[in-house]
Amino acid sequence: MAQQSELEADIAVVGAGLSGLAAARRLVAYGRSVVVLEARDRVGGRLLNEPIGGGAVVEVGGQWVGPTQDRVLAVIDELGLSTYATYDEGDKLFEMNGRIRRYRGEVPRLNPVVLADIAQAQFRLDRMSRTVPLERPWEARNAEQWDRETFASWMHRNVRTAGGRAFCTLVCEAVWAVHPADLSLLHFLFYNASGGGLDRLISTDAGAQKWRVTDGSQRIAERMAEDLGEQVVLSSPVRRIEQHSTGVAVTSDRHRVRAAHVVVALPPTLTNRIAYDPPLPGIRDQLCQRYAQGTVIKTMAVYPEPFWREDGLSGQVTSATGPVKVCFDNSVPGDGRGVLLGFLEGNQARTLGQLPLAERREQVLDCFTRMFGPRAAKPKTYIERSWAEEEWTRGCYGGFLPPGGWTGHGRAIREPVGRVHWAGTETATVWNGYMDGALTAGERAADEALAAR
Amino acid sequence: MAQQSELEADIAVVGAGLSGLAAARRLVAYGRSVVVLEARDRVGGRLLNEPIGGGAVVEVGGQWVGPTQDRVLAVIDELGLSTYATYDEGDKLFEMNGRIRRYRGEVPRLNPVVLADIAQAQFRLDRMSRTVPLERPWEARNAEQWDRETFASWMHRNVRTAGGRAFCTLVCEAVWAVHPADLSLLHFLFYNASGGGLDRLISTDAGAQKWRVTDGSQRIAERMAEDLGEQVVLSSPVRRIEQHSTGVAVTSDRHRVRAAHVVVALPPTLTNRIAYDPPLPGIRDQLCQRYAQGTVIKTMAVYPEPFWREDGLSGQVTSATGPVKVCFDNSVPGDGRGVLLGFLEGNQARTLGQLPLAERREQVLDCFTRMFGPRAAKPKTYIERSWAEEEWTRGCYGGFLPPGGWTGHGRAIREPVGRVHWAGTETATVWNGYMDGALTAGERAADEALAAR
Repeated sequence: MAQQSELEADIAVVGAGLSGLAAARRLVAYGRSVVVLEARDRVGGRLLNEPIGGGAVVEVGGQWVGPTQDRVLAVIDELGLSTYATYDEGDKLFEMNGRIRRYRGEVPRLNPVVLADIAQAQFRLDRMSRTVPLERPWEARNAEQWDRETFASWMHRNVRTAGGRAFCTLVCEAVWAVHPADLSLLHFLFYNASGGGLDRLISTDAGAQKWRVTDGSQRIAERMAEDLGEQVVLSSPVRRIEQHSTGVAVTSDRHRVRAAHVVVALPPTLTNRIAYDPPLPGIRDQLCQRYAQGTVIKTMAVYPEPFWREDGLSGQVTSATGPVKVCFDNSVPGDGRGVLLGFLEGNQARTLGQLPLAERREQVLDCFTRMFGPRAAKPKTYIERSWAEEEWTRGCYGGFLPPGGWTGHGRAIREPVGRVHWAGTETATVWNGYMDGALTAGERAADEALAAR
Repeated sequence: MAQQSELEADIAVVGAGLSGLAAARRLVAYGRSVVVLEARDRVGGRLLNEPIGGGAVVEVGGQWVGPTQDRVLAVIDELGLSTYATYDEGDKLFEMNGRIRRYRGEVPRLNPVVLADIAQAQFRLDRMSRTVPLERPWEARNAEQWDRETFASWMHRNVRTAGGRAFCTLVCEAVWAVHPADLSLLHFLFYNASGGGLDRLISTDAGAQKWRVTDGSQRIAERMAEDLGEQVVLSSPVRRIEQHSTGVAVTSDRHRVRAAHVVVALPPTLTNRIAYDPPLPGIRDQLCQRYAQGTVIKTMAVYPEPFWREDGLSGQVTSATGPVKVCFDNSVPGDGRGVLLGFLEGNQARTLGQLPLAERREQVLDCFTRMFGPRAAKPKTYIERSWAEEEWTRGCYGGFLPPGGWTGHGRAIREPVGRVHWAGTETATVWNGYMDGALTAGERAADEALAAR
């Protein structure tokens, strides 16, 4: 192991994703010195731009922001960045039972019995969600009942039509990148409440997929890091956090940072991979043993032009068939080329993730071709990113709790452990799992550290 | 960090619990050299003797063996150790709804409707369990259905009486140290099948609590370690495993071991805390993100004599009330003193684990006093061990999978990753979670490494 250099700061921050950077930015605004230790050789965490030539950039990580995500929209503005609308013109496609339907607006023209089934399910889920306290989901009046079953078992009891269940499964995959069997019903309801309801979570025009960030979402992190300058240290995975009576020592492969406090801004499952001295309380460790990451492979195909637009198609697909179950037109404005975006989520990602790239590529392009015709079969470029394989993330979009998690261990989610404070979007109360939640969580953890000094 | 010494061996083993020691013993029997790296300053992992003076020893970790656990019984014999019967004379106590009932035999005299309810539940659970392939639970005919719900939601649908549900909850806490909401029904069925059915799992006289090991169960590990001699290295937590084309390098805080293969014998959740180069496949990492440990605080009170025996009591209690829900007479034969053993399991351990020692002690002794009278209130000694707090175990009795775990990621459970082989009782097919499973899992991993050379 190389010689470690010693650094000092008022506060150390672990992780230069959006949450860690937001914590550092807040601390610097209050006159504190910080050192942000980042494992990767880049900032941004789950935000990652990928250049596709000609100055155009797509994102292989998180990319959308939407209405009511006030904090991220404000920060984008503060940083001098801008947004543009997700391409949302033309017809959408919905595939079920071997049939592809075109539709306009928010809802495909399905059998009215199925539509009524979906509507009652959504109404009930949203109504239950409104009773979940965002700060303490385990104190919901029905917390015990809701945390003892999965979203899947709720769905099988309360959604009667095959179409309704296919819709619920799609929602679960599209929002959490997990199978309905993976999620505690209580976690579903908490997260749904945190984002303001199902319409907000799943809608393009009125929801979380409404806007994109000019030049790519990773620019938000890069701009924040530029302002922080040398206070952000790359390629420094943190291995150890020691606490003593007056401060902490945070050891990475390259540096040892002495500080009064430390903000840990990682997905919960990764926080357990650091060695703590003294060790963390059991309640905290066991919470993070259960707070797993979703599974998603984000794929994109780049074509000479967005040919589907000529056919009056928006590029937006939801398919109950899969394996690509959600598609978007992810072309870059002004670039001229067409980009189709396809998500492999939950069990599709787990299964196809085992295949060689060429086979997975073929299955993805087969889906694109089924939807958009033979021109989709031969892209200029195929891009994919499997976030479960990423050592410093280990799954996207975010973390989720299985049954028993919130009621058994939830109270440890934000509870500081001495001089260690917890950030990361999984600790957010509003827009948990999104960029907006990452920012507010980082700022909340920074405020804790400031107040504790 | 101190200077690291370099060691060489044919095979490196991580963890000197029963499984790692069994792997090493098998490898040595086949003429291979091994180095076993252990994080603690002792061997035995979840087996831990605690002297109570006068040469007597109790166990604050795993302690029982039983019929059909053929491998551990054979090893006890090979090592020159012996067993004796768990104290099982006199009446047992069962507490529900504020009433304590005395009974003999296996079943308390409950309302016949409750007994019938319990019997039908047990019959159905055992029948379902017999269809789960131990090598591949995810291939059970009904795997998808069983893995999409918790044991709690199954119970609430299929067990109609409050008494029946209290019994099922007790079983879940006593066998897994979790709440019924925590477990996938498929995991319940797999584990039940792995141990040979519910009667085997829960019975004292005919099951997994039948025998104790003379001088304490940790002696099994200590005897194995004695035979391995200097090949077992203590106080050496492994931080990193590198693989290259001809071997591995295993780095602990004190040593760096070069070997052809490595056997990792840790609970799944701890395997993810080692840094791997190259990183582990996503499917393996995500399996272990979900394979959490149960929560148990094992408590004991030592009295001048086993006074409950004079009252014709066996010391065995099951209580639906709690917080101590399961008790045993854990006195040491020939010692003269009386030892009451009480388990805090699942949510009781999670809640009481947050209290100061004195308050937890008081609640435990209140339970003992309710059962055995005022003499139980004033023990000579109170002993407890909270396994969630133990940095190198992080929960007992063992690991469990929530819904979606087996079907989403289960195929990675024993799949070697290059030169890395997985041991630990959580990888066992027979008596998963028990000492017997720890031994067979270690031997199976050793065989893999031998075959791969």
